Amino acid sequence: VALDEPLTGEEEEEVARLTDSQRLEYFSDAVLAIAITLLVIELKIPDPHRGRLLDQLVEQWPSYLAYIASFGYLGVIWLNHHAVFTRIKHVDRGLKWASMGLLFTAATLPFPTAVLSEALTANDLSDKEVAAGFYALMAALLCFSWLVFWGYLRTHPRLLEPGVDPEFFRDEQVRGWIGIALYVTGGLLGIFVHPYVALAVFVLGPPFYAVTSEGLRDSPLADRLLRRRVAA
Amino acid sequence: VALDEPLTGEEEEEVARLTDSQRLEYFSDAVLAIAITLLVIELKIPDPHRGRLLDQLVEQWPSYLAYIASFGYLGVIWLNHHAVFTRIKHVDRGLKWASMGLLFTAATLPFPTAVLSEALTANDLSDKEVAAGFYALMAALLCFSWLVFWGYLRTHPRLLEPGVDPEFFRDEQVRGWIGIALYVTGGLLGIFVHPYVALAVFVLGPPFYAVTSEGLRDSPLADRLLRRRVAA
Amino acid sequence: VALDEPLTGEEEEEVARLTDSQRLEYFSDAVLAIAITLLVIELKIPDPHRGRLLDQLVEQWPSYLAYIASFGYLGVIWLNHHAVFTRIKHVDRGLKWASMGLLFTAATLPFPTAVLSEALTANDLSDKEVAAGFYALMAALLCFSWLVFWGYLRTHPRLLEPGVDPEFFRDEQVRGWIGIALYVTGGLLGIFVHPYVALAVFVLGPPFYAVTSEGLRDSPLADRLLRRRVAA
Amino acid sequence: VALDEPLTGEEEEEVARLTDSQRLEYFSDAVLAIAITLLVIELKIPDPHRGRLLDQLVEQWPSYLAYIASFGYLGVIWLNHHAVFTRIKHVDRGLKWASMGLLFTAATLPFPTAVLSEALTANDLSDKEVAAGFYALMAALLCFSWLVFWGYLRTHPRLLEPGVDPEFFRDEQVRGWIGIALYVTGGLLGIFVHPYVALAVFVLGPPFYAVTSEGLRDSPLADRLLRRRVAA
Repeated sequence: VALDEPLTGEEEEEVARLTDSQRLEYFSDAVLAIAITLLVIELKIPDPHRGRLLDQLVEQWPSYLAYIASFGYLGVIWLNHHAVFTRIKHVDRGLKWASMGLLFTAATLPFPTAVLSEALTANDLSDKEVAAGFYALMAALLCFSWLVFWGYLRTHPRLLEPGVDPEFFRDEQVRGWIGIALYVTGGLLGIFVHPYVALAVFVLGPPFYAVTSEGLRDSPLADRLLRRRVAA
Repeated sequence: VALDEPLTGEEEEEVARLTDSQRLEYFSDAVLAIAITLLVIELKIPDPHRGRLLDQLVEQWPSYLAYIASFGYLGVIWLNHHAVFTRIKHVDRGLKWASMGLLFTAATLPFPTAVLSEALTANDLSDKEVAAGFYALMAALLCFSWLVFWGYLRTHPRLLEPGVDPEFFRDEQVRGWIGIALYVTGGLLGIFVHPYVALAVFVLGPPFYAVTSEGLRDSPLADRLLRRRVAA
Repeated sequence: VALDEPLTGEEEEEVARLTDSQRLEYFSDAVLAIAITLLVIELKIPDPHRGRLLDQLVEQWPSYLAYIASFGYLGVIWLNHHAVFTRIKHVDRGLKWASMGLLFTAATLPFPTAVLSEALTANDLSDKEVAAGFYALMAALLCFSWLVFWGYLRTHPRLLEPGVDPEFFRDEQVRGWIGIALYVTGGLLGIFVHPYVALAVFVLGPPFYAVTSEGLRDSPLADRLLRRRVAA
Repeated sequence: VALDEPLTGEEEEEVARLTDSQRLEYFSDAVLAIAITLLVIELKIPDPHRGRLLDQLVEQWPSYLAYIASFGYLGVIWLNHHAVFTRIKHVDRGLKWASMGLLFTAATLPFPTAVLSEALTANDLSDKEVAAGFYALMAALLCFSWLVFWGYLRTHPRLLEPGVDPEFFRDEQVRGWIGIALYVTGGLLGIFVHPYVALAVFVLGPPFYAVTSEGLRDSPLADRLLRRRVAA
């Protein structure tokens, strides 16, 4: 396929369109930043005309936990996104579509969060169970969109930075399945045991998951490398 | 016009003002990212005090489809925007105004989306028809603002990256007219046949359109180029 | 003051802190982009349960004009901001504070817009007059914050790109005073003649002002320069 | 630990993952910009059907002050963030987590702001006291998250730009403790003296604090350096 001919103007342009992962990063950062910051406007401002604001603020505790759960989840998503894009050199159309899927599920998360928050501060147990199940479903879908994203990268190694092993994304996919299992389990516990058990899973899941699979600090290798750089 | 004299300080500055397409891209990315993420706050949180949250969530299905329709549309808009700006080297004042028109119609889309969503989950058929027509109108206006944008680029080839054929934007304009036709047809079907037919057009239109006119993957040329780069 | 001694580490660092205008631009872009996009969520979604959605949408026409007025105004603000920052090389603390003032008045504009929009679609004439006056006041404050910003630049020429004449900002300040006069006049007309006259001023002001003071296209100089670049 | 061996591909990649503080800056800028701009949507639009819009706007004055307090606070946060990141060269996982904590407390501030705003424009004194205390608590938490962030930097000097003294962050931590003291005092004054005293502390605190600890202008050193650069 004539790999050694010089590029025509049109071809140069085509290449340009393939190479910039940066703008996709900015756009994704913006969407994730907005989604994570919009969560706060779903917290209900108590109507304070009754002189019992303190009680009202305290009674809303489950909605604070739902807020923390989604903030933590989207935070981990951003850290993941950040980590993945250091391994991506080129962006093609398929990867953009996979990114759109990922941003769709992330941008939608404030909705099940608000539903959960609303139901947990109301009085109907069956509603709370439904809300926990709904949140679990949407959170699992967000994990699933990562599976698709990683799968695309794994099968398109030409998009990766040189030296990145495509099998890295197989390990990531395993982590994605664990995430799905976590949320499905949380949802089932919420429906069949108690919605607050689901809430605990949703709140503790993201940090626990992030810490156990990556550690709070960098790997020993990263540590050694930084020390080497400082010495240089 | 003395093309070979050295530039004065004032002239250098004038040039600087013409060259930065980057900040316009960031601003556009931000506006599109916010518009696409704001869509979620128009999804109604059901009042769950009645123990029938599941039914309420299910009954709202048309509002989810309206959400998906606008998310998909704005997603395609962003992909388009991204693709166009790889071909733009300079930004002048006229192009900034054309961009503002484009951002205006894009940023306004959450409003007809919310109107459509509200009407489709209420009970009046004539309201649903009106909402479908209104959405179609605003979505067509968004296509129209692209026509203006492409037209400006086509008649100002000096703003383009070297090697970009201005006629490229004529092809894009054809695509724009197809988009307008799609939404006008959808609106008319919504008014004269049934609003759900319009909803189907709004949901399926953007991905179908994007896939048929560009394909889910890159062109064979792009493919060949990437292979060449990897080989180099 | 020992201008020729080599810089110490601390001094180098101090310089670094002075030089990055870029991050201030990103932050400002983000705030302006969010403010301009948030305007849409103040448009009221008519409650469509009564089968008269079309009438309701039409009756809201003044709120669409208020929306357009503020979108246009913030759009011109962004274009201005963009144009000014091409002339700024260094950012010091005073300029950051002047920027904060500017972002404060810009970010607040959605509030008087919503007040105006609400009052103009209700039935009390005196409320409409008050709302027009309030909008005019806040819009004039936004012009005023630009006066402060330009004044700071004019008296701190060391922050400017080489070759930029500080007197440029005196001309800009004249434009700022014209803007204040425009909004004050609009507000007075709204209070003493009719609120719709004010609305017309608010809608037509920004584009008219932008076009007359800068033109829709670039200056002949810019034109000549681009032609030279293309020839080169 | 073999500091002089050449890096393997995997190691290079690991380094790449450690070095980009830029994307964290963008994300933080975006979150802070969104949080600061979202504050405006918590300002209540008076229902103007009663012909007394002016009175209603005036009666809401405490909510404007609450708005100004939080805008000023988040503005100072952004300036701080900006200043700190000019000193950071590398970002590791721990710093990302510390950043997440910081963004969490910053992004949550609109909630206590709205609670304060709502309570101060209602009629119950005890509710106002509670709201002042709640705001003080959340504002102090935001200071506390900075203490953690600075502490991490101070104990991880390898992440800093060359020439930056880690002890700089001890001084910053002192400033953080002053901020906590300010808000705790404000909250106590609000509960035990009067909520409006707390409001005054919240409004005047950020600018007073910023000015006294840094000055409105740059340091004499910075001044000298800029003059040197201009002379060069």
